[in-house]
Amino acid sequence: MASIIRYDSKPALKDPFFIEALPGIGNVGKVAGDFIADSVKAVKFASIYSEGLPPQVNLDEDSVIDMARNELWYGKVGDRDVIFLRGEFQGSTPEGQYYLAQDVMKELLKMDVRKIITLGGYGTGAMVDEPRVLGAVSDKRLKEDLSEYGVVFSPNDPQAGIIGAAGLLIGFGKIYGIDSVCLMGETSGFFVDHKSAKAIVDILMKMFDVKLDTKDLEEKAGQIDELTAKVKEAEDQDTHEDLSYIG
Amino acid sequence: MASIIRYDSKPALKDPFFIEALPGIGNVGKVAGDFIADSVKAVKFASIYSEGLPPQVNLDEDSVIDMARNELWYGKVGDRDVIFLRGEFQGSTPEGQYYLAQDVMKELLKMDVRKIITLGGYGTGAMVDEPRVLGAVSDKRLKEDLSEYGVVFSPNDPQAGIIGAAGLLIGFGKIYGIDSVCLMGETSGFFVDHKSAKAIVDILMKMFDVKLDTKDLEEKAGQIDELTAKVKEAEDQDTHEDLSYIG
Amino acid sequence: MASIIRYDSKPALKDPFFIEALPGIGNVGKVAGDFIADSVKAVKFASIYSEGLPPQVNLDEDSVIDMARNELWYGKVGDRDVIFLRGEFQGSTPEGQYYLAQDVMKELLKMDVRKIITLGGYGTGAMVDEPRVLGAVSDKRLKEDLSEYGVVFSPNDPQAGIIGAAGLLIGFGKIYGIDSVCLMGETSGFFVDHKSAKAIVDILMKMFDVKLDTKDLEEKAGQIDELTAKVKEAEDQDTHEDLSYIG
Amino acid sequence: MASIIRYDSKPALKDPFFIEALPGIGNVGKVAGDFIADSVKAVKFASIYSEGLPPQVNLDEDSVIDMARNELWYGKVGDRDVIFLRGEFQGSTPEGQYYLAQDVMKELLKMDVRKIITLGGYGTGAMVDEPRVLGAVSDKRLKEDLSEYGVVFSPNDPQAGIIGAAGLLIGFGKIYGIDSVCLMGETSGFFVDHKSAKAIVDILMKMFDVKLDTKDLEEKAGQIDELTAKVKEAEDQDTHEDLSYIG
Repeated sequence: MASIIRYDSKPALKDPFFIEALPGIGNVGKVAGDFIADSVKAVKFASIYSEGLPPQVNLDEDSVIDMARNELWYGKVGDRDVIFLRGEFQGSTPEGQYYLAQDVMKELLKMDVRKIITLGGYGTGAMVDEPRVLGAVSDKRLKEDLSEYGVVFSPNDPQAGIIGAAGLLIGFGKIYGIDSVCLMGETSGFFVDHKSAKAIVDILMKMFDVKLDTKDLEEKAGQIDELTAKVKEAEDQDTHEDLSYIG
Repeated sequence: MASIIRYDSKPALKDPFFIEALPGIGNVGKVAGDFIADSVKAVKFASIYSEGLPPQVNLDEDSVIDMARNELWYGKVGDRDVIFLRGEFQGSTPEGQYYLAQDVMKELLKMDVRKIITLGGYGTGAMVDEPRVLGAVSDKRLKEDLSEYGVVFSPNDPQAGIIGAAGLLIGFGKIYGIDSVCLMGETSGFFVDHKSAKAIVDILMKMFDVKLDTKDLEEKAGQIDELTAKVKEAEDQDTHEDLSYIG
Repeated sequence: MASIIRYDSKPALKDPFFIEALPGIGNVGKVAGDFIADSVKAVKFASIYSEGLPPQVNLDEDSVIDMARNELWYGKVGDRDVIFLRGEFQGSTPEGQYYLAQDVMKELLKMDVRKIITLGGYGTGAMVDEPRVLGAVSDKRLKEDLSEYGVVFSPNDPQAGIIGAAGLLIGFGKIYGIDSVCLMGETSGFFVDHKSAKAIVDILMKMFDVKLDTKDLEEKAGQIDELTAKVKEAEDQDTHEDLSYIG
Repeated sequence: MASIIRYDSKPALKDPFFIEALPGIGNVGKVAGDFIADSVKAVKFASIYSEGLPPQVNLDEDSVIDMARNELWYGKVGDRDVIFLRGEFQGSTPEGQYYLAQDVMKELLKMDVRKIITLGGYGTGAMVDEPRVLGAVSDKRLKEDLSEYGVVFSPNDPQAGIIGAAGLLIGFGKIYGIDSVCLMGETSGFFVDHKSAKAIVDILMKMFDVKLDTKDLEEKAGQIDELTAKVKEAEDQDTHEDLSYIG
């Protein structure tokens, strides 16, 4: 088992950080990471194909296909070179996820990555007014800075651990001695949650000491607020109502 | 994981095209590809065995067995050398499909294949009067010729992507820099659809600038017309009728 | 993926035949093959361990364990050296079955095996009075002798093909150019079917031109006859009765 | 497929024994093995990561993560160097379990392990007053000593064999010629069973000729006694009561 990795270019990066932004609960990590990448006009530089991804091609608006893949993008966030992992898919089996993360890690090691940041959602199963951002770290010493930026640390939480790429990449990061953190935005998980993603973006802007134009993201987060308000209203009227139809 | 590939002969092919014709929705791709291969009296030249195919042997009318396999055939369509991928099975797992497609691609690269054409059905879930042929391409520039031949391009369509060998082989084709197209005949998917296959054959005849005797195929397509008419009649009588018993 | 193969001894075999006798429908193949092996006082000479077999150990009457395995045994049937494949398990996944059969085949090739004979049941789903033995061959020329011994050849039958080790080993046999046959005893499949196994043993005794003491096997086959009679009686009394409780 | 094994240190061990203490039925093996390891102040010296383990990280009370792993610990039990296999997980697929056990075995062989002892529960599906410890061995000669220590040997028991790491590691032990035993404490399997674990610990103390402070374990075992008494009382009152809610 080995991924096929195709480089469009080999950017010369200095002490790069890494941000993982693949789909997951409420798509919080993907929305937040894609927002940062798009804001800094990141550029795709590599495609990763793997037997762990779904065996299919997808079509764009021109009917041009590409095989299900993960992508590496490069951009400068503030003064820092950043590598992004983006895509529409995660590995579809446990083994596929493991190998894919391992293959990504190998590329990151070649590029001498200095910090691994994975993004994800923390599913609450209930509407969230003000989503907090929970953190997990590869080393206790990393908590101080993150706490200052507003990240919340809750002992042994999430109890069930962190699954998928967001978990495996900080796991491998720790194994290979790279500072690694996971940021998880609280989300009901019922829909794509831009508000939770915005909470992560706020943390990341502090971490990279950069100010990005978040107007669009705020607008979409506002829609989440309206949705939350409606749901709460409905709940008040009928506490037995099943809300799972939303999303 | 590696397929066992047994060559009966090594045909000397000049700038060959490749046509994939394995089973799928409405068996449209298989019927169309098998028709072309049989019409040009294609010859089997290799068998591909793989752990991704079902672990079984099948028997012919003489009780002679052969292991579940995919086959490579060779024929001349018009002036063009063509390699066909034929068989009764696709890989039975996502990983199996991926490896099998990868192994086929390796053989095609050795034979210096110039174009990859995969055939399949586009399932509509409803009776189709005049099946269109939708297209997907590895490069926008390939659309012009195909459009002239009557292929329809619909943005981002199929939304769910193209799965199985028809998808993977154009995906790998693109990765390895080979012009690749997928032709998908619209089909209800309720039965083996010769009419949809005929629509693909019409496109292929234009593409290869060749006239084949399609009488048999038209006859079978006519039976599909009759079936469609009956179903529509039944629908008019009872719009609530469940048609899923057909096929 | 590779099996661990441990040889207790390396018997010097001359032009050996191979008989596969693993569990399957009605355990027909296992009962028949084990009977032949035991009758000729075959000796175990190798154990095959594989990740495709269940991940467990089993205990004997002395609480001594051994890992789930397949075994190679050696014996002389008439004038012929014969290798037996015996065991309590088949591979538990399609891929596991494929790799295990491939690894067995590699050992057989080293021992210069001359004929591959796999044994199995042909499930009818109904009580069988006089089980026939159906055959499948790697080459048409093998049918004449088998027909003389009483093997029945039915075109394209079984329609669903032959699955598991009985199928894969003749499939690999054909790929590697070794004469290969599968003998399938008809069986209801509701219970371990010694009568069907006896029918296979009768064929094998003719094939190897040997007379074995089948008294024990006939006794057990007699019990099957009694069971069949009872079931038929019950069926006459109540044609709607569900017989699936038997076994 | 290959595990990643990270050594924190390479302890110099003389003729070490090995104790497997992973989760399983009633967590009997894990509780017993962890108790011994903690009692002798064992030290972790290696981590084993594998695609066969769940693809996740878990968090400690400081929100510090580590990838799902198995661990090797070292301690002196009486006069004997002992290696412990500890962890929160077993392999999650049959293949994963097989490879993980094989990779552990390779490390044990490097450390010249002299005896393999795996611990587990023997599920009875009913409350157990005085749990016996059943044994399985790689060689009949090992039974005499174990019987003296109180281990019970019951022919062919457990009938279904021993699954998971407890089975595979003695299976591989036998293949590689190392004396191997499995100790199984009888347990209802309805809850974490410290009483059954205590029964194993008693055997192990005799085996290693060592006296450990088992007060804590006895206390917890006492709670099991109380639970058993309550369940029996409830059973007397209503013999039809379903007890599966316990645990």
